Amino acid sequence: MIDLRSDTVTRPTQAMRAAMAAAEVGDDVYGEDPTVAALEERVAGLFGHQAALFTPTGSMANVLAVSALVPPGKEVLCEARAHIARAELGAHGAIGGVTMRTWSHPRGQLDLAAVSDLFAPDLGHYFVPTAAISVENTHNFAGGAVLPLEDLRALRSFTGQRGAAVHLDGARIWNAHVATGTPLEEYGAVSDVLAVCLSKGLGAPVGSLLVGPRDLVAEARVRRKRMGGGMRQVGILAAAGLYALEHHVARLAEDHAHARVLAEACGVDPATVDTNIVTFDRPDAAGFVARAREEGVLIGAVGAGTVRLVTHLDVSRDDAQTAAKTLAGL
Amino acid sequence: MIDLRSDTVTRPTQAMRAAMAAAEVGDDVYGEDPTVAALEERVAGLFGHQAALFTPTGSMANVLAVSALVPPGKEVLCEARAHIARAELGAHGAIGGVTMRTWSHPRGQLDLAAVSDLFAPDLGHYFVPTAAISVENTHNFAGGAVLPLEDLRALRSFTGQRGAAVHLDGARIWNAHVATGTPLEEYGAVSDVLAVCLSKGLGAPVGSLLVGPRDLVAEARVRRKRMGGGMRQVGILAAAGLYALEHHVARLAEDHAHARVLAEACGVDPATVDTNIVTFDRPDAAGFVARAREEGVLIGAVGAGTVRLVTHLDVSRDDAQTAAKTLAGL
Amino acid sequence: MIDLRSDTVTRPTQAMRAAMAAAEVGDDVYGEDPTVAALEERVAGLFGHQAALFTPTGSMANVLAVSALVPPGKEVLCEARAHIARAELGAHGAIGGVTMRTWSHPRGQLDLAAVSDLFAPDLGHYFVPTAAISVENTHNFAGGAVLPLEDLRALRSFTGQRGAAVHLDGARIWNAHVATGTPLEEYGAVSDVLAVCLSKGLGAPVGSLLVGPRDLVAEARVRRKRMGGGMRQVGILAAAGLYALEHHVARLAEDHAHARVLAEACGVDPATVDTNIVTFDRPDAAGFVARAREEGVLIGAVGAGTVRLVTHLDVSRDDAQTAAKTLAGL
Amino acid sequence: MIDLRSDTVTRPTQAMRAAMAAAEVGDDVYGEDPTVAALEERVAGLFGHQAALFTPTGSMANVLAVSALVPPGKEVLCEARAHIARAELGAHGAIGGVTMRTWSHPRGQLDLAAVSDLFAPDLGHYFVPTAAISVENTHNFAGGAVLPLEDLRALRSFTGQRGAAVHLDGARIWNAHVATGTPLEEYGAVSDVLAVCLSKGLGAPVGSLLVGPRDLVAEARVRRKRMGGGMRQVGILAAAGLYALEHHVARLAEDHAHARVLAEACGVDPATVDTNIVTFDRPDAAGFVARAREEGVLIGAVGAGTVRLVTHLDVSRDDAQTAAKTLAGL
Repeated sequence: MIDLRSDTVTRPTQAMRAAMAAAEVGDDVYGEDPTVAALEERVAGLFGHQAALFTPTGSMANVLAVSALVPPGKEVLCEARAHIARAELGAHGAIGGVTMRTWSHPRGQLDLAAVSDLFAPDLGHYFVPTAAISVENTHNFAGGAVLPLEDLRALRSFTGQRGAAVHLDGARIWNAHVATGTPLEEYGAVSDVLAVCLSKGLGAPVGSLLVGPRDLVAEARVRRKRMGGGMRQVGILAAAGLYALEHHVARLAEDHAHARVLAEACGVDPATVDTNIVTFDRPDAAGFVARAREEGVLIGAVGAGTVRLVTHLDVSRDDAQTAAKTLAGL
Repeated sequence: MIDLRSDTVTRPTQAMRAAMAAAEVGDDVYGEDPTVAALEERVAGLFGHQAALFTPTGSMANVLAVSALVPPGKEVLCEARAHIARAELGAHGAIGGVTMRTWSHPRGQLDLAAVSDLFAPDLGHYFVPTAAISVENTHNFAGGAVLPLEDLRALRSFTGQRGAAVHLDGARIWNAHVATGTPLEEYGAVSDVLAVCLSKGLGAPVGSLLVGPRDLVAEARVRRKRMGGGMRQVGILAAAGLYALEHHVARLAEDHAHARVLAEACGVDPATVDTNIVTFDRPDAAGFVARAREEGVLIGAVGAGTVRLVTHLDVSRDDAQTAAKTLAGL
Repeated sequence: MIDLRSDTVTRPTQAMRAAMAAAEVGDDVYGEDPTVAALEERVAGLFGHQAALFTPTGSMANVLAVSALVPPGKEVLCEARAHIARAELGAHGAIGGVTMRTWSHPRGQLDLAAVSDLFAPDLGHYFVPTAAISVENTHNFAGGAVLPLEDLRALRSFTGQRGAAVHLDGARIWNAHVATGTPLEEYGAVSDVLAVCLSKGLGAPVGSLLVGPRDLVAEARVRRKRMGGGMRQVGILAAAGLYALEHHVARLAEDHAHARVLAEACGVDPATVDTNIVTFDRPDAAGFVARAREEGVLIGAVGAGTVRLVTHLDVSRDDAQTAAKTLAGL
Repeated sequence: MIDLRSDTVTRPTQAMRAAMAAAEVGDDVYGEDPTVAALEERVAGLFGHQAALFTPTGSMANVLAVSALVPPGKEVLCEARAHIARAELGAHGAIGGVTMRTWSHPRGQLDLAAVSDLFAPDLGHYFVPTAAISVENTHNFAGGAVLPLEDLRALRSFTGQRGAAVHLDGARIWNAHVATGTPLEEYGAVSDVLAVCLSKGLGAPVGSLLVGPRDLVAEARVRRKRMGGGMRQVGILAAAGLYALEHHVARLAEDHAHARVLAEACGVDPATVDTNIVTFDRPDAAGFVARAREEGVLIGAVGAGTVRLVTHLDVSRDDAQTAAKTLAGL
């Protein structure tokens, strides 16, 4: 089976397993796990931020990040298919108590005119003010689309003038980085808080990080415990993250190339495939998915009429070519 | 002073005060207030629904209504300037725990294509499904715009097919009813739940109602108590509502006429003024408001560059003409 | 029918209705209702506090009060049958997000040794610190028992040393005041925040007030709007409150006397009846309640085997004697 | 340094690390991690329950468990120093929205008379009904005290008659099992839901499980994702849990013996030490802790005047004796 359902399905390599097995650990609730500390420092540094916090999932990192910026009674703006809106089981409302309003863009892009129209200043009365704008880069449900750095810079300038913050959902920021060559630090510079993930393209089994200012991260550490995310000798997992940062970032370019191979086979213009995700409409999406499975290719349907393919560490060039041939023939 | 800030500022008339003073009352927490019961039955009947529930405010009616349709983890869709999104201090997220996504329309209208794009079916997994679409008629922050009945019917048909519900924020449904001649029952027929208000155009001092199916209203009655809205001998206030329904609905046509007078004076095309609210852009909104106040006309700024005028029971034809003259001269 | 179910069932007198009908009103959301302002100032003054806030119910006043003192993640301590714990539909957890721990006392009294044992200092880590202790005076479900002022003073001294606050649920503080002669200001002096009610013994149809420091009340005003309690021309109701404060406080002594008459008839030692509530155990409580109803006396069961009688403004001396005779004969 | 602060500080052994490194894994969000599935099945079976759910922490398992039994507006009863009340940062209120009431017992025991007094039947009105009673076995903050099985059986019988559920916080149920010889299945039989932990006495680095009926666990799986606990190839951690269940349960008897050694040295009657925790009062607790640290023994203060020692996998017999000597000399 060639599994193109998601880049979350990767299994740790032998080398990564060895790194985990050898990890030096301590009780991270007491702040005593050296491997977690090293990972947090490393990731904070990559983005030019002061601090980072390891979390069991990207969802928790996002909830902690948005909650840190947007208290109950204030709002976050995001694109309508953002992961924080569509997935995460509504935790931002259900746990964070935030208000959300959205703009829509076919490629999940930032639309600064729409943001500006939506933006609600703090009138000091009974109106809900905009506290943060959240952007997702790459944008999962918009087919792994990259948000151009200049757009993010324009947003940062806009929010700076208006007194709001920027949350960057960077679950796949590594893909954006590799696809465009933009230094990670540049993404850090346009964001107040980021959430980045180790267990998608990077291939670690578990783990995400919240990245931001020291005080915000310190508060998020307390909230993480309230949400049940204060793990103990979790350096075992952090070691996988450190390994992945060392060995699995540059290779994302291969995933992107494989995605373009798949795109072509499925009649999608490869120029529209920014990174490792290919989405296209098939009226018979469910049937297409089922037939692909019979032929040994696992793919996913996103909504009723859309198919999604995702390349990753466990899909080799051969796998991609085999899957391309299979899907082209369905 | 001629007060055009909002139709919430009306004071009860002598006749309304007399009706309140004479109201038969009981302990409504025990379901024993006959005047409240009469009002609830009356309003439910007007909209062709089974039951209604008196609440201290329109905000509480809206929160109870949306919560009844949208549990934490599901979402409501609404226009970006809807009262439930912009006002109500974010209670739908902070208390209801709902997720919200929005479409934008310059006149606050329903955009069924946008709704259809946003609509999220219940995929039974970790995605947030759309449980309700909320529409506001008339739309306050879009200048009292009426939503055409045919659009509401199309929405009802759409949600019927997709398995979602319709919440109608009818704080000013009476204005839509009078402006278009649409029977209230028709508005009831296109909605699963409505929230309607007595203390805006109708001129009652306090009170709104949630209107809907018997079971939903019974549950909302319990939640009302949790929110602190279970009042005792509140027939005093319900009597004002009954009086207003009898005497203050048809006269809303006068408010609409007065609004057009004001619109003309302020350079707004009266044809764009559907009901009792006039909004227009003035770069110097705050200054304009201040100068009007000096001349004896209270008006409001909505946002940085927008002025809002609202006509109501306490603004006579003479008042409207005087205010028009004043504002035209500023 | 003689209604002894609760002191919430009173109906406004003619004089009170006249006061309501004549009330000067304005839009209280804009802070422009002079009667509400007068009531808030009056009640704040009675308790020697800076400010007060009118709310539609005692439940909302309590939720706003406790929330003001106890954020999510901190705790309030109270007696196990406190109204905030047993009634109010769990709003303190469901809306306020607070943690609650309890001590138990057969007469609902403050047990400072128990409070001291429970008290959790703020250890600055992952423990839940005690932010407030809540006391109820008189204690409803403990049969209207009065909490002695010296106990409240000892509590205030204790919390002062420990850095916690005192919430006084004074739904029936007027009864405690009249029964003991303790000035209201003394109750104010031992409390950081109070919630007091107009629609129980005082006989107003609707309304409670939160009483406390100016800043806390200002914040509670915003939260009141979020909870749906920001009413408009609510001076109509405030006028009833002002009337009740003028005319219905001293007469509570009559209710207390009537309660002792009823107690005696039911075999309860009148010396144990502090105020206007009589509770006693009857294994066949439900049957007893039903038989009383047949004989024209409405009473309530609290739990499976306990009966509760409450005297109030609408129970005359004759009513009390008639009811006593009836109940004695059952 | 001999670390007696908590049994959470244990580090995985080489053999456990090898088991983790060799674990077969899959994407557990898709239900495809065989090692997680094996652990969940194994633990469910140990307690005679249908299903189990792996969580990153005991706090998350407890929040999911209590939330599954107690919706907002209902209450859980527990002992006043229960971990769910005192620790977990108030998540049961802040996230679960539950009401909590407590009884107090010097040894954290179940007090069925107190439970019976507190128990609130569902009166179908505005009262908060008791939905669950939570017990903790062993009881952490009561010094690792064991709850006798006969007490738990009596509770189960009581709740069966009253229509409430039992939550067993079994973070250290393994210690109770080993100390008393009670089969785990017996603990399962007296509980509707359990939360059990792998990363305390058992020595796994991370992980707890919720154990209960299939439907409840299925719903908790969804809520786990909302709380950010839906990890991917988490079989790495589950493997440690399986290893610990195989190799680290019986040896808890050694921890218990070591605790008695320490107790004796500190002037505590060893007969009062049920398991692996020793607590005793020292007016100068902070100073005592500091002096111990200087002598190479890490211990903890629980509150202002109480010291806590905890034995575990990484404390050998020699360590215990050395620490005993050190502490005796302070």
